[in-house]
Amino acid sequence: MPLLRSWIDSANSATTPFPLNNLPHGVFSVGEGDLRCGIAIGDRVIDATVLEAAGLLRADPEADVLDAPYWNDFMELGPKAWADYRARLTAMLAEGADEATQDALTTFSVPLAEAALHLPFKVTEYTDFYAGKHHATNVGTMFRGAENALPPNWLSIPIGYNGRASSVVVSGTDVRRPWGQLKAPDAELPVFAPCKRFDLELELGAVVGQASSGPVTVAEAEDMIFGYVLLNDWSARDIQAWEYQPLGPFQAKATATTISPWIVPKAALAPFRVPVPARERPLLPYLDEATPGLYDIDLSVSLAPAGKAASTISRTNYREMYYSAAQQLAHHTTSGCPMNVGDLLGSGTISGPEKSARGSLLELSWGGKEPLTLDSGEARSFLEDGDRLTLHGTAHGDGYTIGFGDCTGRLLAALADPYAR
Amino acid sequence: MPLLRSWIDSANSATTPFPLNNLPHGVFSVGEGDLRCGIAIGDRVIDATVLEAAGLLRADPEADVLDAPYWNDFMELGPKAWADYRARLTAMLAEGADEATQDALTTFSVPLAEAALHLPFKVTEYTDFYAGKHHATNVGTMFRGAENALPPNWLSIPIGYNGRASSVVVSGTDVRRPWGQLKAPDAELPVFAPCKRFDLELELGAVVGQASSGPVTVAEAEDMIFGYVLLNDWSARDIQAWEYQPLGPFQAKATATTISPWIVPKAALAPFRVPVPARERPLLPYLDEATPGLYDIDLSVSLAPAGKAASTISRTNYREMYYSAAQQLAHHTTSGCPMNVGDLLGSGTISGPEKSARGSLLELSWGGKEPLTLDSGEARSFLEDGDRLTLHGTAHGDGYTIGFGDCTGRLLAALADPYAR
Repeated sequence: MPLLRSWIDSANSATTPFPLNNLPHGVFSVGEGDLRCGIAIGDRVIDATVLEAAGLLRADPEADVLDAPYWNDFMELGPKAWADYRARLTAMLAEGADEATQDALTTFSVPLAEAALHLPFKVTEYTDFYAGKHHATNVGTMFRGAENALPPNWLSIPIGYNGRASSVVVSGTDVRRPWGQLKAPDAELPVFAPCKRFDLELELGAVVGQASSGPVTVAEAEDMIFGYVLLNDWSARDIQAWEYQPLGPFQAKATATTISPWIVPKAALAPFRVPVPARERPLLPYLDEATPGLYDIDLSVSLAPAGKAASTISRTNYREMYYSAAQQLAHHTTSGCPMNVGDLLGSGTISGPEKSARGSLLELSWGGKEPLTLDSGEARSFLEDGDRLTLHGTAHGDGYTIGFGDCTGRLLAALADPYAR
Repeated sequence: MPLLRSWIDSANSATTPFPLNNLPHGVFSVGEGDLRCGIAIGDRVIDATVLEAAGLLRADPEADVLDAPYWNDFMELGPKAWADYRARLTAMLAEGADEATQDALTTFSVPLAEAALHLPFKVTEYTDFYAGKHHATNVGTMFRGAENALPPNWLSIPIGYNGRASSVVVSGTDVRRPWGQLKAPDAELPVFAPCKRFDLELELGAVVGQASSGPVTVAEAEDMIFGYVLLNDWSARDIQAWEYQPLGPFQAKATATTISPWIVPKAALAPFRVPVPARERPLLPYLDEATPGLYDIDLSVSLAPAGKAASTISRTNYREMYYSAAQQLAHHTTSGCPMNVGDLLGSGTISGPEKSARGSLLELSWGGKEPLTLDSGEARSFLEDGDRLTLHGTAHGDGYTIGFGDCTGRLLAALADPYAR
């Protein structure tokens, strides 16, 4: 599919992340104004809440679904409504739209530069997976040796654990270095202290847009997915090392999970679909891929120490994953687990086969044994106070690019006393 | 504290679970009527939603908080409002209340026997702990041998993992035996099949009634807890055994978690407070108990095969736990994890030191090696289709008892084909 041209000029460049082909969903405010649902195009944000209220573009003729600061009610309408809304908005924004439409959308939009961006949806529950084979192999090699790197179940199950929805924040939110229980390998007892090995995890998040109440097939799961966000699963490695046996990570993953401000709808990513890699062990049939479920999305991570320029520390691609979001979601429902609109599924850390394609500092610095050197000359094993981490994601189309907006956050120093009031 | 006498006679017996000393919070409906907030007393349910609407008993003079089928908005008002509401309702229901009040409350209440009971609160997120030492020791001994029964972190951390809020159901809901990946110890590959080792876990659930946005002390955590429910954390042991390394239980715990229909407020349990047992290893100071945080609550489990009488298969007490809910909640916030009104914390399986006091079939049948014999003569290692499981909880006061209502569920056979539509 080529670039779709819009009467909004800024949407027609080959490099804007928000061409007419994208139309990602977000929530914005201007100044002290209310939070509203918005759609990015070029350098503007269309005010979808006002468009609905004015009757110019409604997803549901009967009821308002955009009169709240999240897209959940819209998602609940289902795939047909998503496609229909997208088709009508595309027509309204396309070159050749009539003048009255252009005037209205110009009035009912604001410059992106003036918009403050908020969480684009209400996160109902959050599940994080471990579905990148390079990542699982790297981490497994460090912890258990190369012979036992992958757990025996890994090639059969998209391994996941429940995370904490309350900890999901929008890009731009500062993240405070947490305290926790840490136990040095040679210490007998733990101490309660600020985390020393705070890390990122480069992931993509799938946003569940339809509910289910029993097991669903991979094809049904595919239809339930509304879109994708960039996702940084901030991780406290030292807290995790001491706490995670036998029931999994808990406080190590609960400080914050940052997502991009824009949900890129599945439709915008359709031209970039790629199949999952060849299976190294046959999957049980309930996990067979229904349709190519990964996407060719270039991903990178940049790290900027306080007051210094950013260095790119990792470049990888979502197609490196072993399991797709639809496979993960299908597995998630096997036990009858009900899924709801607004559930968020983290892909798991996306690492490629090369050293430069590793999606966490744990892997990049090999557990701290091989510190990175940033462009500014500083070394990094794990994050330092003041570091700004930014994830970037881009799909490259024919004369256009699809972006998510940056997924960024700055690490603040730990509180001197977390209980001081 | 002695029995508080009510003008509702049925509340004055020594054996009703709902004397005036209790006043537990639930949600009910009658026939095809709307769901409303209710409070149980004797054999009646007070319609708290109507009392609020009529202006007879309001928790907040400014806004309705009981005009929705859950107690979340009420909980959000905080401990002072909870105590004030309880004091006023107690006075209205106490012997000697004026006739107009008695007439009104008689009008605005229904027989408990006619009320259908629903989830008493909207479960925001659900966390399950592993804080019973007898349970952790039993399970650890089976899986890792007696020498390594307790994981090294167990005496320092109230180990917990995030569960799935969407799977929480109210007592009385049937539970469907799940399918999942099972791998026999001698098999090379897993199969996808109905769970063969479906089990219960006898727990108490703490209902979080106040939000927090950073680390809280145990004393602060104590103030955030609104009340307690009985909780059965249904568990698929064979699914768990294959899936849980390295990131913890996932689908094994996602089929259903049943809670009692009544939240017993903390105030009703105050006379039964007991301290946690002596520490076997000193805790880090942030976990020190602020006030006796366990309760002397007798607990039991009964199992009734389809069409047969029930057998009591376990008798234990909540005072057997090693960590209190306040300690668990304080630990939950160490990393800065935000907590919200409606969060539910499962205590972990409550097993006592005796064999008859074990809170799961996994322990009672020692992994299936020592099947139980029920009163009906049948043997049980794990649950069979049609079995009805019921948890009971009772605190014994001076001439009165405090109950939660039964926490019950029947196990339905697995679907022949979980993907048939």
